[in-house]
Amino acid sequence: MPQLRKDPVLGRWVIIATERGKRPTDFVHIPEERRGGFCPFCYGNEDKTPPEVLSYRDPGTKPDTPGWQVRVVPNKFPALTIEGEINRAGEGMYDKMSGVGAHEVIIETPDHDAELSRMPVEHVALILKAAEQRIVDLQGDTRFRYIQFFRNRGYAAGASLEHPHSQLIALPVIPKRLTEELAGSKKYYGYKERCVFCDIIAQELWTSERVVVEGDAFISIAPFAARFPFETWVLPKKHDPSFEDIDADSRFALAAVLKETLSRMNVALSDPPYNLILHTSPVGERDLKYYHWHIEIMPKLTKVAGFEWGSGFYINPTPPEEAARYMREVEL
Amino acid sequence: MPQLRKDPVLGRWVIIATERGKRPTDFVHIPEERRGGFCPFCYGNEDKTPPEVLSYRDPGTKPDTPGWQVRVVPNKFPALTIEGEINRAGEGMYDKMSGVGAHEVIIETPDHDAELSRMPVEHVALILKAAEQRIVDLQGDTRFRYIQFFRNRGYAAGASLEHPHSQLIALPVIPKRLTEELAGSKKYYGYKERCVFCDIIAQELWTSERVVVEGDAFISIAPFAARFPFETWVLPKKHDPSFEDIDADSRFALAAVLKETLSRMNVALSDPPYNLILHTSPVGERDLKYYHWHIEIMPKLTKVAGFEWGSGFYINPTPPEEAARYMREVEL
Repeated sequence: MPQLRKDPVLGRWVIIATERGKRPTDFVHIPEERRGGFCPFCYGNEDKTPPEVLSYRDPGTKPDTPGWQVRVVPNKFPALTIEGEINRAGEGMYDKMSGVGAHEVIIETPDHDAELSRMPVEHVALILKAAEQRIVDLQGDTRFRYIQFFRNRGYAAGASLEHPHSQLIALPVIPKRLTEELAGSKKYYGYKERCVFCDIIAQELWTSERVVVEGDAFISIAPFAARFPFETWVLPKKHDPSFEDIDADSRFALAAVLKETLSRMNVALSDPPYNLILHTSPVGERDLKYYHWHIEIMPKLTKVAGFEWGSGFYINPTPPEEAARYMREVEL
Repeated sequence: MPQLRKDPVLGRWVIIATERGKRPTDFVHIPEERRGGFCPFCYGNEDKTPPEVLSYRDPGTKPDTPGWQVRVVPNKFPALTIEGEINRAGEGMYDKMSGVGAHEVIIETPDHDAELSRMPVEHVALILKAAEQRIVDLQGDTRFRYIQFFRNRGYAAGASLEHPHSQLIALPVIPKRLTEELAGSKKYYGYKERCVFCDIIAQELWTSERVVVEGDAFISIAPFAARFPFETWVLPKKHDPSFEDIDADSRFALAAVLKETLSRMNVALSDPPYNLILHTSPVGERDLKYYHWHIEIMPKLTKVAGFEWGSGFYINPTPPEEAARYMREVEL
């Protein structure tokens, strides 16, 4: 079983995948991303994945057969295991916990070569609906404290399969970055009695220089202190702590802004690899006055993006104002 | 002038290099690392770098001419600029600061094809001496609060030139990661009245399963909650808050353990790209009872290392016990 281990200095939990333990030789030759070959996410290969936990499919078709538009399955090589209790234990001065959690894959479309930003808005909304439905379901498991939704596009961003997909990991701990966001936004709220993200949105709308896409209910911006070139955030304009409370209209509005944002990024940067991460409230904290859910998109522009000094110290060679302007000005 | 900008939620400072502002097209085609071609760090090209600020050279040779063994020059494309006052300013709700700092390059050897782990221990010690001397000198500038020493090896780890070199960045702020380490180790000290790093060393020596190299005065270990496969730390065994107080004997002992650690990593992983980062006390804090300087080495094993979810949430597929064992067992 995988282990969760806590850094004794920083308090950061890390998943140590003890079972699939990669040997040094596994890292030496890394295959390039290949087209073609067998794909377990394509129609007809439904039996090559664990049985589906959710699908939106044509009426009359059976689970784990073709006919689906979006399909969610447990990850065949999960980072955490679903069975078992959470056992906390010490190991001398160190702290560890059994690696209990869920790891699911959202297969976003039957079309192997599809690209999220070129799908119809309705289909993007359907993918978001699957994410939402799975988050709500996983929140029902009392062992979990945070459900992480993310999407890696491209080999350089960590995607091991090219068929469009995103992932969900249900965790028995709250990730460090989110803990910090909660603490920071709570502190701001204590001082200002306003949500820091609401204030960010107000200022961005006022100056508009870092706005990438503005819809009626959602906005995308290049953040003021962007870590990476073309880092872009998508936020609901109205205060809202939890993604999973979204209604059908808002989901459609979000899908439209997300699609346009990714389209602009794809044109500006020629379909870059990227990581997309949902930041939402922890399980059981739906009504926070100080937290505001949002999506962070970080293109991996080789050598520059991901160029973190391991010290939390980032150098961003592209001012976010310039990145936003490029993305606004590209022709779609 | 570059800007330092503060994330309003997390309080993290980021350097925004407004001047060299990379355009999207700069990211589209990334050249592969090439052998050959012009190298500004080789003998005879001393006039292609800014004038040296330090060198160890043959008696009778002049500055900025051949004859040096180690040479330190200002970075020709600095992330921060050395001239100017630190001006703090608001921009609506946001905080920014003028990007004042120093950015220097330690050219580690005249030999373009040399590799740190294969240099004589004496030469590794000489490089460490240059780092130490520059840190002490930069600490004299009252504008700086932290001097960051680091080394990127290989294109995938962010090195833009292959000639062996390391870098120093003097910062007017303390990097977030270090602030967190200081806070975490202070908290531990408050509870235990012992340095957390001293306790880590004691436990690692006791169990020995995560020890990579043990010398008389220094040790290298795969940390218990390693974020990345083969992440390795080098620490002084005796409590010591600041790297720059090291004496000649200790420097030699450190060079020997560092060289052997990197050799073992290079054999186990076939000369991987890596980032090496010195963690030491902030300027003016040389006597901290709770902090313990150390070096962190993170091999960049494509797709796996650097695979950070942007959420402070890491999955490490190689248990540190296994990584340490591999490194211990390789033949040098």
